[in-house]
Amino acid sequence: MARIVTFGEIMLRLSSPGQKRFVQSEFFDVVYGGGEANVAVSCANYGHNAVFVSKLPTHEIGQGAVNALRRFGVNTEFIARGGDRVGIYFLETGASMRPSKVIYDRAGSAIAEAEPEDFDFDTIMKGADWFHWSGITPAISDKAAKLTRLACEAAKRNGVTVSCDLNFRKKLWTSEKAQSIMKPLMQYVDVCIGNEEDAQLCLGFKPQADVESGKTDASGYYEIFKGMREAFDFKIVASTLRESMSASHNGWKALIYDGKEFYESKRYDIFPIIDRVGGGDSFSGGLIHGLLSYPENQGKALEFAVAASALKHTIPGDFNIASKEEVENLAGGNASGRVQR
Amino acid sequence: MARIVTFGEIMLRLSSPGQKRFVQSEFFDVVYGGGEANVAVSCANYGHNAVFVSKLPTHEIGQGAVNALRRFGVNTEFIARGGDRVGIYFLETGASMRPSKVIYDRAGSAIAEAEPEDFDFDTIMKGADWFHWSGITPAISDKAAKLTRLACEAAKRNGVTVSCDLNFRKKLWTSEKAQSIMKPLMQYVDVCIGNEEDAQLCLGFKPQADVESGKTDASGYYEIFKGMREAFDFKIVASTLRESMSASHNGWKALIYDGKEFYESKRYDIFPIIDRVGGGDSFSGGLIHGLLSYPENQGKALEFAVAASALKHTIPGDFNIASKEEVENLAGGNASGRVQR
Amino acid sequence: MARIVTFGEIMLRLSSPGQKRFVQSEFFDVVYGGGEANVAVSCANYGHNAVFVSKLPTHEIGQGAVNALRRFGVNTEFIARGGDRVGIYFLETGASMRPSKVIYDRAGSAIAEAEPEDFDFDTIMKGADWFHWSGITPAISDKAAKLTRLACEAAKRNGVTVSCDLNFRKKLWTSEKAQSIMKPLMQYVDVCIGNEEDAQLCLGFKPQADVESGKTDASGYYEIFKGMREAFDFKIVASTLRESMSASHNGWKALIYDGKEFYESKRYDIFPIIDRVGGGDSFSGGLIHGLLSYPENQGKALEFAVAASALKHTIPGDFNIASKEEVENLAGGNASGRVQR
Amino acid sequence: MARIVTFGEIMLRLSSPGQKRFVQSEFFDVVYGGGEANVAVSCANYGHNAVFVSKLPTHEIGQGAVNALRRFGVNTEFIARGGDRVGIYFLETGASMRPSKVIYDRAGSAIAEAEPEDFDFDTIMKGADWFHWSGITPAISDKAAKLTRLACEAAKRNGVTVSCDLNFRKKLWTSEKAQSIMKPLMQYVDVCIGNEEDAQLCLGFKPQADVESGKTDASGYYEIFKGMREAFDFKIVASTLRESMSASHNGWKALIYDGKEFYESKRYDIFPIIDRVGGGDSFSGGLIHGLLSYPENQGKALEFAVAASALKHTIPGDFNIASKEEVENLAGGNASGRVQR
Amino acid sequence: MARIVTFGEIMLRLSSPGQKRFVQSEFFDVVYGGGEANVAVSCANYGHNAVFVSKLPTHEIGQGAVNALRRFGVNTEFIARGGDRVGIYFLETGASMRPSKVIYDRAGSAIAEAEPEDFDFDTIMKGADWFHWSGITPAISDKAAKLTRLACEAAKRNGVTVSCDLNFRKKLWTSEKAQSIMKPLMQYVDVCIGNEEDAQLCLGFKPQADVESGKTDASGYYEIFKGMREAFDFKIVASTLRESMSASHNGWKALIYDGKEFYESKRYDIFPIIDRVGGGDSFSGGLIHGLLSYPENQGKALEFAVAASALKHTIPGDFNIASKEEVENLAGGNASGRVQR
Amino acid sequence: MARIVTFGEIMLRLSSPGQKRFVQSEFFDVVYGGGEANVAVSCANYGHNAVFVSKLPTHEIGQGAVNALRRFGVNTEFIARGGDRVGIYFLETGASMRPSKVIYDRAGSAIAEAEPEDFDFDTIMKGADWFHWSGITPAISDKAAKLTRLACEAAKRNGVTVSCDLNFRKKLWTSEKAQSIMKPLMQYVDVCIGNEEDAQLCLGFKPQADVESGKTDASGYYEIFKGMREAFDFKIVASTLRESMSASHNGWKALIYDGKEFYESKRYDIFPIIDRVGGGDSFSGGLIHGLLSYPENQGKALEFAVAASALKHTIPGDFNIASKEEVENLAGGNASGRVQR
Repeated sequence: MARIVTFGEIMLRLSSPGQKRFVQSEFFDVVYGGGEANVAVSCANYGHNAVFVSKLPTHEIGQGAVNALRRFGVNTEFIARGGDRVGIYFLETGASMRPSKVIYDRAGSAIAEAEPEDFDFDTIMKGADWFHWSGITPAISDKAAKLTRLACEAAKRNGVTVSCDLNFRKKLWTSEKAQSIMKPLMQYVDVCIGNEEDAQLCLGFKPQADVESGKTDASGYYEIFKGMREAFDFKIVASTLRESMSASHNGWKALIYDGKEFYESKRYDIFPIIDRVGGGDSFSGGLIHGLLSYPENQGKALEFAVAASALKHTIPGDFNIASKEEVENLAGGNASGRVQR
Repeated sequence: MARIVTFGEIMLRLSSPGQKRFVQSEFFDVVYGGGEANVAVSCANYGHNAVFVSKLPTHEIGQGAVNALRRFGVNTEFIARGGDRVGIYFLETGASMRPSKVIYDRAGSAIAEAEPEDFDFDTIMKGADWFHWSGITPAISDKAAKLTRLACEAAKRNGVTVSCDLNFRKKLWTSEKAQSIMKPLMQYVDVCIGNEEDAQLCLGFKPQADVESGKTDASGYYEIFKGMREAFDFKIVASTLRESMSASHNGWKALIYDGKEFYESKRYDIFPIIDRVGGGDSFSGGLIHGLLSYPENQGKALEFAVAASALKHTIPGDFNIASKEEVENLAGGNASGRVQR
Repeated sequence: MARIVTFGEIMLRLSSPGQKRFVQSEFFDVVYGGGEANVAVSCANYGHNAVFVSKLPTHEIGQGAVNALRRFGVNTEFIARGGDRVGIYFLETGASMRPSKVIYDRAGSAIAEAEPEDFDFDTIMKGADWFHWSGITPAISDKAAKLTRLACEAAKRNGVTVSCDLNFRKKLWTSEKAQSIMKPLMQYVDVCIGNEEDAQLCLGFKPQADVESGKTDASGYYEIFKGMREAFDFKIVASTLRESMSASHNGWKALIYDGKEFYESKRYDIFPIIDRVGGGDSFSGGLIHGLLSYPENQGKALEFAVAASALKHTIPGDFNIASKEEVENLAGGNASGRVQR
Repeated sequence: MARIVTFGEIMLRLSSPGQKRFVQSEFFDVVYGGGEANVAVSCANYGHNAVFVSKLPTHEIGQGAVNALRRFGVNTEFIARGGDRVGIYFLETGASMRPSKVIYDRAGSAIAEAEPEDFDFDTIMKGADWFHWSGITPAISDKAAKLTRLACEAAKRNGVTVSCDLNFRKKLWTSEKAQSIMKPLMQYVDVCIGNEEDAQLCLGFKPQADVESGKTDASGYYEIFKGMREAFDFKIVASTLRESMSASHNGWKALIYDGKEFYESKRYDIFPIIDRVGGGDSFSGGLIHGLLSYPENQGKALEFAVAASALKHTIPGDFNIASKEEVENLAGGNASGRVQR
Repeated sequence: MARIVTFGEIMLRLSSPGQKRFVQSEFFDVVYGGGEANVAVSCANYGHNAVFVSKLPTHEIGQGAVNALRRFGVNTEFIARGGDRVGIYFLETGASMRPSKVIYDRAGSAIAEAEPEDFDFDTIMKGADWFHWSGITPAISDKAAKLTRLACEAAKRNGVTVSCDLNFRKKLWTSEKAQSIMKPLMQYVDVCIGNEEDAQLCLGFKPQADVESGKTDASGYYEIFKGMREAFDFKIVASTLRESMSASHNGWKALIYDGKEFYESKRYDIFPIIDRVGGGDSFSGGLIHGLLSYPENQGKALEFAVAASALKHTIPGDFNIASKEEVENLAGGNASGRVQR
Repeated sequence: MARIVTFGEIMLRLSSPGQKRFVQSEFFDVVYGGGEANVAVSCANYGHNAVFVSKLPTHEIGQGAVNALRRFGVNTEFIARGGDRVGIYFLETGASMRPSKVIYDRAGSAIAEAEPEDFDFDTIMKGADWFHWSGITPAISDKAAKLTRLACEAAKRNGVTVSCDLNFRKKLWTSEKAQSIMKPLMQYVDVCIGNEEDAQLCLGFKPQADVESGKTDASGYYEIFKGMREAFDFKIVASTLRESMSASHNGWKALIYDGKEFYESKRYDIFPIIDRVGGGDSFSGGLIHGLLSYPENQGKALEFAVAASALKHTIPGDFNIASKEEVENLAGGNASGRVQR
């Protein structure tokens, strides 16, 4: 059981029920989620002491977010309380050729307006084994970008391994702004997670694989990963590869490179997809667990991560409510879906 | 069928189902509502051409608000489209001694940031019979306050009767700020709706009735109404009186004064209350219809208004989905609740 | 365990959920019900062999009605299958001063167009102890009126006690039409159930109690019952008395007269009412059981019936899903509502 | 923005939730729909002034239908109010090899019994750009057939383009009856929509493609379309082609012929199907928009129509709640279903 | 219409809604089911007098089970009432590579503690045409095993054909225990249903086909069936063959051998699966009907059974709510899923 | 913030939705609850470190119970994991004169079969301020009774204040058995909570107040409390007094005696009751907080406790999801139920 710290935003997610469109819905399902919160829940499910750090209002919507995390065993003691609002995102789940749709309403959230005084990062990082953040956190606001840097510095002071999921979000910042913030933060990062598109937009790398069209060329990634690793002195670079046949049907695999070996995971055919939101986060959560559990076997770590995230696509909500045993069972090859009695 | 214009904000209302508390809820019921939108729906239900003026984003949550209004026959042609967000309020419905709870998340809504260019008030007011607004609208933002003034001016230019529900909201502004904005706007108002607390906080009147304790002294209101009428040159002053026995059980009546006669309505005993949000707005809607329909009989107009708003307490959602016939039936004395086959 | 036959229509009931109004509802709750079907379910719950006779289409909506009856133990072997449609009624449940609302859509139902060949009433009545019908059945159509007469004749041929709940429905026929059909049928009736309004409209009696205003004067009923009994040679006349304080709050008691004793039951204060539809039918069901169980004690029979029907008001749906023991417990005086563990 | 008139019936649709069978369902989802109403909603979504003409009762079920149309922006000012009932259809949604099931209960609806006095077709058609009806409308009743003719005549008098979706329904009439009514109406039709089965049953054409078995032979259609066009002097003939692999999985494309070019659209593979009811109507709605928008490019018009109707299969309810932009995006080739943030 | 008796347990099934995981669910769907109860419902749907024999508590949860059976026409007159609890199983429905999960909580149920005095098997079997049980019944408890033997003996005394679905459940007993109980019971069995895994675990047969890996080799089954038939003197041996591509996608066919002919059914591709619980039971129910209806044509009987059970996979709940006509339609080759209007 | 330990069972509660009866329900709402778990949640809501000690299976139903506790901030680190089942209770919520109904299915739960090795009570009690248990815990099983004694002994060794809610449950044991177990345990108890009926059944006291009939005579309680206090050397005796007007309407107050002063709280009129299960537990939770917060003012402590438990009756579920501020607000006299904005 490792101590794993994540830092970012948790939002109120309001989704139209079933495959209903937003304008048809008389109620919205309520869950909470956000990149780093989702990673924390994954890690808690695998048995770790997962510490999620953020800021949330004292009112009941803020409390609802805290409760959602506590329910799944996440350590919430370092969540600062205050501010006015919980960021919101609306989700409409697509089907077949109709894509899912996300509307963000997150400006002015408590974490976007948090101050350094809200967090004692040295206390938080003390004794931690891992610190994870994503490119969404510094994109939220300049204040959040500064907090991300402070968290990274504290992590390094305390000898904590740092991972970052690049995760470029065009609604939050431009590529120029992203690069100006993200590049300096790369010095703290040991494990970088991101596909070639994120690498280009956040770090200035040019993609060579044709991803837009859904084709995935693993060999192209070897060059990208090698380049990224050298440029930023990462220990490990990893990425998922999604083939989007439709909103209901995806192919899913992942790649990893540690400077020695370039490893490509098995591919999962996911059909039907129940909820693909949080798929990338569940990969990060699985990878952290995998690399902590099999430090000498990045292939095994990656297979855990990709199985975890394939499984996530079958589970409603942002959180990957799957146990270590369930992920291992799937990674071990049991994908027949036979009833477990 | 009169043309009745209202101007203000319509919000997304997210309420926990049944009597569940916020932190227990796995889904939120979705309706849309807001003071002036609620008045518009009431007027549309009574057969008028009710024009609701506001600004809403182009995305689906904004569209949902437009659709909610169209569904009940409100004219939405003058709703400007643009801006980032729809204001939100969360509602938890209480029971017995547990009060209902409202959490507002409305900062930065499209209407709060709307500009004069978004509205051509002279076109809007042309041919209108009535213009209604509440003290919430100018409280939203300085921009909205300016727009309220522009709307009032256009109404007066076009010979439109103007009503205002004072409706002081302490979460939106202080009494000092309210008075600085509201007092100058009173010159445009013909019909003022508000209890003594609103009058004090928005207009600087001192209450003489003991309302905090739930006791209502009609005679005290005569003096207040008389004073208000003289000070601001209103034609008519009216107010509801709520006795709060519990969150489930209220007494409800209303008062009106036109400078000649002070009239006190019959009193309704409402138990159980299904949804009291929008109760005041349904009174305004009923009063507008009443005064337009019975210009010579303010007592009859008031009885329509108070019956309409009593009925609203039995209907879920902000909108008063009741027909003119249903209100007349209740105002006429049929409160036995016998099944209508 | 007696064999109790009832004959009439069972309809698909579509009700808006909770206290929502029709035009707000995104789904309708589905149950099945109808006067004589409701009586049959009551009798089955008390342990009798309750035979419901009607006609229903072969399609799944017709099958749904059969299944609803079978589920609660009603004998459905004499339900003819055929015809085009199941009659429908829409129900909106009121609250406080807002009345519940019923919209009927029952024209052309299978039972309204049934023929004598659909039923072998002598086989049906053979060995039966009781036959019950209501004034709704002959009002459905001329064909149904004829079938009612055939059923009554067969009952008499087979020595079966006959009860009739007068139940005038102005949407189905005029008072003149009702009297022309109902009066000749009274010769078959042993037990007549109906208030003074039904007696006037169906049989030509003038009411003397002031019921419109919700006041109930038991002494006035003594004269009415006596007159009815003599005019039509009934053995027993009984009626419920409802005081409608509001849609949520009613007083409820009943009266009976057997030519010897005039008995007035205890009064129940029902608040809140969960579902008052079927309240009268549950009284008929309870009275049949009561008179069969306590032939020498009409007071005890009536107390069972009125307790049964008071309990019905707390149960969703048309059917009175209450056991004999539950009714006896309430009739015995235990109305405290303490949790039964 | 064109003025597009449609004329027909809108029904109350009651569907069992999810994949539940009718007899398992404790509630029915409530939406409203009907061929021409569905076309009107499509057109309103694309920004047109869509006028739906019909007759509906004044009660709340009738009002619910009006509200459903208004909610999505349809112009309801020419809907006559009166009559007794709203036609109903029950829908059970299938899955895999289990087909969906529809039970109609529409006899005696308000529109089936409407009279010429209910509609002033010259006023309705004045300034209109398009008039659409389907073979269902004249099949409802002889009165409705007469009204269809009157509407067509008024359309022609006012220079309006007329389209007809043949849509043979064997539950409503025989092929002989259909031909006697439909053939004379074809003189008013400019754009005829229908597959070879409809053409045979409504107009007396013999099919040459083997559609029963799910095989589609585009070349066979060329001959049929050519023949139909010549026989009835249509300007354009179009049809969809559905391959039914299962209730959950269909192939979908369309064909069009304007006397010059025979165009076959791209084919969509729809899996899973969320709701295929209204698929044909959404094609008609898309085709009307397409032909109005690209009068010189029937291929582009058809691709819009087939993309629109493919998308409809992923949306619950009869109405195609999709925007012009969404349809254009899919027609433009973006079918990957990637999340839109 | 045959009289078909089944004996076993009916449980309360609590399933998480949709694809939610257990720990995410705020409510559980309630149905009732169990191997032999499911067979009884199938037989009742096909028009037979299906008698389900078991023991259930007198409380409302027990009554709920009785009502569920009555609703679908099962004869419940021989269900003994008493004991403390209804066995429960919790079901989580999987998707794609995530398997469904079952948690049993059935110890101490009324039927597990039933006594011979609870059942008069000679009365029950009198006039019966068929008696069916599964390997689950004797596995419940030693008392239930004894009752199974008594039922078989009575069946044989009354000349009733006996079928047994071997259905080994490792949560209930070991293979050793199973063999000690099941082997002596085989003397009463005419029709044995079971795959090679059940045959090995219950009866000591070694499998030769490679089923674990999802490959099905019909020829291998011929040898197994021949061996089983000879060893235990069965008249007929049959089994289903499931290919598990995923929790959502299965292949499904069946095999039968009567000593003369070895027949392999057509194969169904089921995608998506709605509910696969009860799939085997629906096969048994279909086979019983098939063998009774086509005693001379085991192939036709098997095709009915396999079509019935394929259809079951598309229906929510344990029970196969499909009519004889629907099964025959599918067995006859109509699997296109076209809407039935 | 005190450390408060409670020990007992947490069950899966399955309740029919709304006011539906068990046999009408197609789903059951899922919450978890149990006397001491409910107390722990109350204490956690008031800001304490509430440690709930029990045993739960490792499967997902057991995990669901753990998650429910974590969600509301209860410390679950000392919950032993193992055993087969989670105890279940079914709840049907009554209305008006229909009582709520509870069916227990709790035999053989993990905590009933727990062993001393499962708990290290000295570690658990170390540093604790309070230990609470109820008479339900030792009634579960002889093993649980022994564990209760061990917990009490450890509490005393560690100087922890002990409270006990007598809570006699006739379904779990007889009065004789209860007295044989409970009397020896009273030596560890400082604060005894129980009405005169519990005192008689658990401890052998004779009641003098007439509680059956719903009348409450505070003076009678003074004698009972005085006697109990002397006989068992309690420091404090307290009890609630419930007047059951109906299942929907109760009066509620409480009494306390510390040897010096006998204090009677204000009385709350609760109407409508939303969920009265857990009402007594919320009183215990409130009393623990009150006595810890106002050690010198038992009256203030009691007013907190009775306000807390009155509030509980308005909240769905076993847990009292109310904050300290909300309880203080009500105890302070604000029961008007006015909307809190």
